[in-house]
Amino acid sequence: MGNLENNRIFFDNASTTRIDDRAYREMLPLFKKHYGNPSSFHSFGEIPEEKMEKARMSVASLIGAEKDEIYFTSCATESNNTALWGIARAHRDKGRHIITSAIEHYSILNPLKEMQREGWEVTLLPVDKYGIVDPHDVKKAIKKNTVLISIMHANNEIGTIQHIKDISDLAKQAGVVMHSDCAATAGIIPLGVNALGIDCCSFSAQQMYGPKGAAAIYLKKGIKMRPIIIGGVQERGRRAGTENVPAIAGFGKACSIAKLEMEDNIKAITVLRDMLTEGILKNIKKVKLNGHPEKRLPGNVHVSFEYIEGESITLLLNSQGVAVSSGSSCASAALKTSHVLNAIGLSPAIANGSILFSLGKYNTEAEIKKTLEVLPSIIEKLRKMSPLS
Amino acid sequence: MGNLENNRIFFDNASTTRIDDRAYREMLPLFKKHYGNPSSFHSFGEIPEEKMEKARMSVASLIGAEKDEIYFTSCATESNNTALWGIARAHRDKGRHIITSAIEHYSILNPLKEMQREGWEVTLLPVDKYGIVDPHDVKKAIKKNTVLISIMHANNEIGTIQHIKDISDLAKQAGVVMHSDCAATAGIIPLGVNALGIDCCSFSAQQMYGPKGAAAIYLKKGIKMRPIIIGGVQERGRRAGTENVPAIAGFGKACSIAKLEMEDNIKAITVLRDMLTEGILKNIKKVKLNGHPEKRLPGNVHVSFEYIEGESITLLLNSQGVAVSSGSSCASAALKTSHVLNAIGLSPAIANGSILFSLGKYNTEAEIKKTLEVLPSIIEKLRKMSPLS
Repeated sequence: MGNLENNRIFFDNASTTRIDDRAYREMLPLFKKHYGNPSSFHSFGEIPEEKMEKARMSVASLIGAEKDEIYFTSCATESNNTALWGIARAHRDKGRHIITSAIEHYSILNPLKEMQREGWEVTLLPVDKYGIVDPHDVKKAIKKNTVLISIMHANNEIGTIQHIKDISDLAKQAGVVMHSDCAATAGIIPLGVNALGIDCCSFSAQQMYGPKGAAAIYLKKGIKMRPIIIGGVQERGRRAGTENVPAIAGFGKACSIAKLEMEDNIKAITVLRDMLTEGILKNIKKVKLNGHPEKRLPGNVHVSFEYIEGESITLLLNSQGVAVSSGSSCASAALKTSHVLNAIGLSPAIANGSILFSLGKYNTEAEIKKTLEVLPSIIEKLRKMSPLS
Repeated sequence: MGNLENNRIFFDNASTTRIDDRAYREMLPLFKKHYGNPSSFHSFGEIPEEKMEKARMSVASLIGAEKDEIYFTSCATESNNTALWGIARAHRDKGRHIITSAIEHYSILNPLKEMQREGWEVTLLPVDKYGIVDPHDVKKAIKKNTVLISIMHANNEIGTIQHIKDISDLAKQAGVVMHSDCAATAGIIPLGVNALGIDCCSFSAQQMYGPKGAAAIYLKKGIKMRPIIIGGVQERGRRAGTENVPAIAGFGKACSIAKLEMEDNIKAITVLRDMLTEGILKNIKKVKLNGHPEKRLPGNVHVSFEYIEGESITLLLNSQGVAVSSGSSCASAALKTSHVLNAIGLSPAIANGSILFSLGKYNTEAEIKKTLEVLPSIIEKLRKMSPLS
């Protein structure tokens, strides 16, 4: 059926996704009917509490975790912040050194900057031209006082998937806690926490056809983590505050759906992705596909057009009813050149001409075809206007 | 129409409220239709962004603030944590001393305990037998290195309303930032940030007939506050993470409704409260009303029954279809004796026999009457069973 709203095409699924109708329906009774606080002793708390625990089971099941290893938060950014601060603080007797990569999301890099101001030492690992972190670099970076390694599962901009298992093996050998930002992968590609060997990961509902307002931290049993939002005893003391029950229930349903339908979605979306990528590379000159040719997210088409501005492409595509991003949604509003594109060695002149088509399960072949019809003339028009070309 | 769900009566509005149908309807189009990320440049972000800014205006208007002084968070606990950590960190060059009261919510007291572990000094002010903080005590507690005073507007358990203006005047004279936890009062009783003279306050949607998942910090222009959830540039850098647009829109609507209908709600709820209070004090022996006789929340009936356990009363009332609380919802699950009741000087024997009826706008006279019918026999039954009586 497509993502059409007034015939508009949504290729910004990395930013947020339209909620699956089944997840939406799961939420509705929890607003007006079963509105109790799940911490209550009385009967109004019963169904909300049951729904939350059912959701916890579904979230755990999606990633091969135990129910008790899932903690709910409000968004992936909060999950990432909690993992970093919480694990680091809980282990600071051992040391104050953290390893991460140069292409992490701002919700990793910016709290780490704050931690540096508070005396933590952070090693920022480079990536190769495809955006891959070399596990050898991780090995070299580990020191006696390293307490945490945080490497994202897949990059939200260029779609590159990391060698997480190789890195987590090194972390394990060194006795260092391993976290992975899985916001771009949970519910999208297979994510088994044991297969990946990670101790902790973060992801949200709204990037996998669930609602905004619910996210999770997986924390392996036995790993210590202090809370950053402190108050009542919700989430077994690891995240205080009244739980957003409707959103959590919708998140659980989105996870159940993802588990069942992921394989089919990957196949269908990959076909569309390859159609779009090939169409762009064939019909438009001076364009480059970024990220890894194979190890990439099924819906990711990140391309750089020489001599023009990504912002302009985004605006003209939007005027034709096609919604794409010229960077991560968190960075878009900041109008900065992407740190990810800098890290893979793109010159600013080329990096600035980048756009991201992030495809999702509601996209259709007709939408790809329409996009391939309008894009070449947009690029041609912009190049004519550009003083650089 | 009452809060009846299968004829059950909900007297736990301090814990959470049933969402107003108008706030609910405001949210719905933002799930499936206008699901874009408000930070996007393309058209899918437009309506979500407009709805968020409309909500920000409504929230600001409820408390007499400017639109740009409102920052959205996920819950009141997060707002309180952000206010404490954020304001304290931003002012630590001046000093590391904070003043608060002994009866604050756990989302104030527990982060302050954590801050004490990190080297902050905290003065916990006592309260009188009604739960009132004496402004003279505040004055005496202010030191050269005091950076923040945080006193709640009204207590969530015993309903006592503080002399905030007297305290904020002292803060102003001393050049100390004044925060107030207004979770129990925003949308319930008049709350003008200028009339109260506060620099910052916290409140959530779900305690004022809005949805779970949205809350706010009011921060007066010019007051410095660092974020605790860090990443993208959402909320002008003061709270990162994709915004929960549907919940924020519902919050805005709940604020508009509250502004229009507060006066009538206060009148109606006060009548019911007084009917319930008088009925209990008249028909049951050895019972005490806690909190201030006049300066209390319109829906608050907090009573202690001698010789019995509040938990047991809660359970038996629940079996009769009446939902009440035996403490704050955050404390209920922890099964601790209330620190608020300790602070007002109730002996544990009496404190443990306490229950809170928190009335809201959906409660009816018929519900009060039914409760007054069943309560005396429940108390009598429990007293017969009690070894203490």
